[in-house]
Amino acid sequence: MAKKVGIRTIELTTPPSFTAWASVVGKKEGEGPLAQHFDVINNDTTFGESTWEKTESRMQKDAVNKTLEKAVMANTQIDYLFAGDLLNQCIASSFGLREFDIPVLGLYGACATFTEGLGLASVMIDSGAGNNCVVVTSSHFASAERQFRLPLEYGGQRTPTSQWTVTGSGACVLSKEGQGPFIKQICFGTIEDLGIKDANNMGAAMAPAACSTLMHFFEDTQTTPEDYDLILTGDLGQVGSSLLYELLEKENIDIKAKHSDCGLLIFDLEKQDVHAGASGAGCCSSVFCSYILKRLKDGNINNMLFMATGALLSTTSTQQGESIPGVAHLIHISNTK
Amino acid sequence: MAKKVGIRTIELTTPPSFTAWASVVGKKEGEGPLAQHFDVINNDTTFGESTWEKTESRMQKDAVNKTLEKAVMANTQIDYLFAGDLLNQCIASSFGLREFDIPVLGLYGACATFTEGLGLASVMIDSGAGNNCVVVTSSHFASAERQFRLPLEYGGQRTPTSQWTVTGSGACVLSKEGQGPFIKQICFGTIEDLGIKDANNMGAAMAPAACSTLMHFFEDTQTTPEDYDLILTGDLGQVGSSLLYELLEKENIDIKAKHSDCGLLIFDLEKQDVHAGASGAGCCSSVFCSYILKRLKDGNINNMLFMATGALLSTTSTQQGESIPGVAHLIHISNTK
Repeated sequence: MAKKVGIRTIELTTPPSFTAWASVVGKKEGEGPLAQHFDVINNDTTFGESTWEKTESRMQKDAVNKTLEKAVMANTQIDYLFAGDLLNQCIASSFGLREFDIPVLGLYGACATFTEGLGLASVMIDSGAGNNCVVVTSSHFASAERQFRLPLEYGGQRTPTSQWTVTGSGACVLSKEGQGPFIKQICFGTIEDLGIKDANNMGAAMAPAACSTLMHFFEDTQTTPEDYDLILTGDLGQVGSSLLYELLEKENIDIKAKHSDCGLLIFDLEKQDVHAGASGAGCCSSVFCSYILKRLKDGNINNMLFMATGALLSTTSTQQGESIPGVAHLIHISNTK
Repeated sequence: MAKKVGIRTIELTTPPSFTAWASVVGKKEGEGPLAQHFDVINNDTTFGESTWEKTESRMQKDAVNKTLEKAVMANTQIDYLFAGDLLNQCIASSFGLREFDIPVLGLYGACATFTEGLGLASVMIDSGAGNNCVVVTSSHFASAERQFRLPLEYGGQRTPTSQWTVTGSGACVLSKEGQGPFIKQICFGTIEDLGIKDANNMGAAMAPAACSTLMHFFEDTQTTPEDYDLILTGDLGQVGSSLLYELLEKENIDIKAKHSDCGLLIFDLEKQDVHAGASGAGCCSSVFCSYILKRLKDGNINNMLFMATGALLSTTSTQQGESIPGVAHLIHISNTK
């Protein structure tokens, strides 16, 4: 059984455990600082597929297969797949997962989809409705660029606040039984919109949602940043992280000493020329399902918050002059139940 | 607590109750056979908004507000909003729901999104993680046509198998406490793909998924169509319904006497010139959150299955020669706990 703590936070009675995880990334990610932690690095950014969208589906499929292999589990042992991506109508997930014969719950929370999935899968397991769930998300630099911005062939110059969409997918198995790390609490976020209209500045659009969810969680649980080894955000990048610090400062909360952002971990910002950092629904899932889960398992981190953030825009909304709403979903992970 | 029955079906220990519901539709829907059952019929298909996408957001917002009004509930009493639509990056939901200050769980299951949401919201309530959830989906004929097919101004001729996207939104409040009707069981579906490639024949693409989910549910629960007053599908239309009968016949199951399809209920197929029926993520939600829930409440229906079906395509996947995967999620609703 789950229960509410404070206004928004869910506390799980039987916290599900991370049983296995896998990450599949492209060439550029394989040249970055986390290279040694990924399961699969493909130096051909197409993965041998004929289109970028098919490549993205392929990465999800490979990530799920690799996770199942590492969990030593058959498809039939998985109750539900929670999946999502950034492509129109989430085709990376639908096409990538159609062969698994596992019920699929499609999600859309932009780059916050991964923690949305972890949260929903945890409630599902805690409720007794399933024993094992897989959560997977993906993104691909080339499929995102041509869908959201410009064709790569156009060679458009990137603005300093822009972020580089990760070519990657991360997947994990969450189980009722296990040795941890465990998902203990969840705080799903509201949609926040402070009127940012620059589609090349996602960090700024997402920071208010990150601030809102984090504030709610601290208030509900009566904890402070000092209670955690790490506060990990999804892909705020440099601009979004600074803005988050600024927004939290107004509330007298300082997370700087504890904060890290997947969008700042996966690339070497200077050497790899990615401007304000990385982004994409596959950014935080590939970083979390490699480097972070390893550090948790090794005991280098024991108690952390993981909050992915999403910018809920489309090219249509931007072209119609709309601002960019953001959303952030948080999970609390610990090595002890 | 929830438990698994058979292989895929979830049985809820404390079935959530439908507390209130509302439907908001456009002019054409208001001229159809269900006109008297809708809460709001807007004869200006723009609802006074400047774009079709903004109109769709507006419909979701109006449907949620109307539902809350009928439930006599404030925003603060709702724990989570489960929402989705067919627009790229689900902007109808993100923009329509940004003002409610309620955590939003974005979903994408194409036209199966509504029952996906009802199922997830039920598990959430049953688990103890919340007392009240709102589920809402929408679609708009004009936003769908220009996104998925052709600009309306082009005046393209519709094929006989094509379906007319409903301009509408349906929303409901599911609660821990209530007098019913209750959601007792849930069967989430796998992605099925028999290779249909005609994007103007969604019914055919969705029928295999409908068959698979229904078969699994009957097997898990050891029930037959005779055990239910109604087996309601989302928007299979004429072509999809016939194909579903055909697929089920091979398994010696005959649902004809019990079956009805929201896509065949909302319009008068002959008089309103909608070819194979209606479709869209707002089709089954607006029909269910009006006519069907009224019939349940009045006791004209006491025990039913509601299975929405989704065609998981995008214009990109179609242009790349891909087939159309389908998915179907089923919920079992009864007037007795």
